[in-house]
Amino acid sequence: MIDDTHTRQARATNERYAIGLMSGTSLDGVDAAVCRVTTTGAGPLEYDLSVESFETAEYDEAFRNHLATLANAGTGRVDDIAVANVALGETFAEAAEQAREAAGLTRSEIDVIGSHGQTIWHVPDYVQLPGRPGRSRATLQIGDGSVIADRIDTTTVSDFRSRDVAAGGHGAPLAPLLDASQFAAGDRVRVLQNVGGIGNCTVLPPDPALDDVVAFDTGPGNMVMDSVVTLLTEGQRSYDEDGSLAAAGAVDDDLVATFLDEPYFQAAPPKTTGREQFGREYAERFVAAGRNRELDDEDIVASATALTARSIADAYDRFAPRYPEEVYVSGGGANNPTLMAMLETAVDAPVHRLEALGMNGDAKEAALFALLAVARLDEVPNNLPRATGADEPVIMGKVSLP
Amino acid sequence: MIDDTHTRQARATNERYAIGLMSGTSLDGVDAAVCRVTTTGAGPLEYDLSVESFETAEYDEAFRNHLATLANAGTGRVDDIAVANVALGETFAEAAEQAREAAGLTRSEIDVIGSHGQTIWHVPDYVQLPGRPGRSRATLQIGDGSVIADRIDTTTVSDFRSRDVAAGGHGAPLAPLLDASQFAAGDRVRVLQNVGGIGNCTVLPPDPALDDVVAFDTGPGNMVMDSVVTLLTEGQRSYDEDGSLAAAGAVDDDLVATFLDEPYFQAAPPKTTGREQFGREYAERFVAAGRNRELDDEDIVASATALTARSIADAYDRFAPRYPEEVYVSGGGANNPTLMAMLETAVDAPVHRLEALGMNGDAKEAALFALLAVARLDEVPNNLPRATGADEPVIMGKVSLP
Repeated sequence: MIDDTHTRQARATNERYAIGLMSGTSLDGVDAAVCRVTTTGAGPLEYDLSVESFETAEYDEAFRNHLATLANAGTGRVDDIAVANVALGETFAEAAEQAREAAGLTRSEIDVIGSHGQTIWHVPDYVQLPGRPGRSRATLQIGDGSVIADRIDTTTVSDFRSRDVAAGGHGAPLAPLLDASQFAAGDRVRVLQNVGGIGNCTVLPPDPALDDVVAFDTGPGNMVMDSVVTLLTEGQRSYDEDGSLAAAGAVDDDLVATFLDEPYFQAAPPKTTGREQFGREYAERFVAAGRNRELDDEDIVASATALTARSIADAYDRFAPRYPEEVYVSGGGANNPTLMAMLETAVDAPVHRLEALGMNGDAKEAALFALLAVARLDEVPNNLPRATGADEPVIMGKVSLP
Repeated sequence: MIDDTHTRQARATNERYAIGLMSGTSLDGVDAAVCRVTTTGAGPLEYDLSVESFETAEYDEAFRNHLATLANAGTGRVDDIAVANVALGETFAEAAEQAREAAGLTRSEIDVIGSHGQTIWHVPDYVQLPGRPGRSRATLQIGDGSVIADRIDTTTVSDFRSRDVAAGGHGAPLAPLLDASQFAAGDRVRVLQNVGGIGNCTVLPPDPALDDVVAFDTGPGNMVMDSVVTLLTEGQRSYDEDGSLAAAGAVDDDLVATFLDEPYFQAAPPKTTGREQFGREYAERFVAAGRNRELDDEDIVASATALTARSIADAYDRFAPRYPEEVYVSGGGANNPTLMAMLETAVDAPVHRLEALGMNGDAKEAALFALLAVARLDEVPNNLPRATGADEPVIMGKVSLP
């Protein structure tokens, strides 16, 4: 056994290793990022983070299908949820172990795990609470932090979003804390744009204070494009690989304009959206409208891609307090050259991939939960009320001990 | 505003106020106990606890019925669970506030809340985990600790049982920590017997170390008696008030012996049981067997009461490492004089109510969660592996900050 007392104490005051764990609503699997987090001061933005390793543990198809039944109001049953909560805890723990080994670190060198869990329900609007006089939003992530702490013998912070929801917020977006602490420039307005299932942006003025940061969901990310491709190919393809279908088609500007008339795009932030808004039903309407216009399949995909790019550019026009001077894109959408080219055209600023700022864009969301966990242990507020709509800054996350 | 800095610091090192919150499977409402917890040493048993106030906030009937649908595999839906998780957090917070006010304390004087939450599913046996190679138990409590922390601005520990389950345990019983730290005698074997829906006992040798404490569910508490009365009166009565029906009947010893032949009673601890074993179906069989023997209703109730008392006495015979010299009863069953008299007869030791040891028996379960929360903050192991079957001592509870 190696005595690592000296090393651990040497970095104890300002440097920690944290593993962030994330699984998105697409139910692909668990992303795990080992991060070195350095404290540079006392505030929520005074952290430097570097990604030491990044691994993805994909769910197998049967498990993905099982989780999809849990995340459905008609089929999500209490008994299955209780058991999957444990199973997911183990799956998340395993992903953390893979990333830790890839980083060449021992368990005792990891200070904390931050786990998002798997969202199985999210209520974005205020609803009446049963048995209560009042109303609230609600969110439910499973993947028990106690199980993670047990299996890999490491302090684990979980269940972040619920604390922001308890404070009146949407529980999203949470990425702005990472964006503002890692990617703000000293001399220009930067926008960090993530294109996952949903698109979300963080607008960072030069050297921002927390209250200067604006962040919100711009609308569909890959969700509409993916659903349109799935519908048009009758399930033969689930997404437009390399944007090749869109590149072969022509955009129907009138079709795009019609679908940009959706109320979500006009609503002012704070706002969040999801599959309930831009899911299959929206894509079905889009495909039907394209066929009505006698468009080729490629034209419909090109139009869906343009819709996505323009909804993002429109959002900057409408809601960015200062217009972006640079845009950095992460998420699966950054791998779609047609979308990236359309974004370049639609946005009046240079558009880059996040990698230009030195971070693997795929690792960003997982890295966020490493940062949030370190802030939780430091008892530093880690939500951004201006972005989430919460009444006040709060310290999100529940701590389970190994 | 009163400056209470001095008072708070004066008690900081060894005395804290904690509020314990509990709601049982009967879905009656939330019990809240304000406790003063004094640290007398560094171990799990080195706490003194006194109950400063005790309040119960009953669920209204509609809410109770709603919760019952959540706790049912056929009707417990993910969307309802997500919303009820928030609603219950508020309900628990309100109960804590009532108890705090009854104790005459300010919010800033309360150091921590310990909340059991509401169990909506519990898997007592190992089951195959979806997507995993292994098996596990599982348990699911709702009533979000983040909401409690938010609403009453106090650090909240929740979700205790899941940590013991993660360590391979049943997640129950948890009461032995309170029993062993508060009620052990220096010179004799004491048994603490709780008679709630289920009966459970803690056997305490003189001045026990943690490993000397044996605790397990003895079998039915009030559950069989209550169901039998409900069946016989066709729902006109839900329990045998003051044991009057049982007192008017005669025990059929052969009927009792037949039902004491249940495998649960023979199984060695650690063991836990619940409604799945001693619920309505068991009571229906009991009533049918009584009617076959042409017993009066009162005789059937008397026999169900004797079954309960004798199952408890048999458990001591079989599984208490040393035979009890005193028994202290808490829970609703302590209010049934016929049951208490039958226990006196069946057990070869004096039987008292817990109040004889200076604690309100109704407050005991809530007080337990105050104690567990303080131990969690102190990072002192608060499960009892010998009782729960866990692989090792762990520190249960997830901490949410205000």
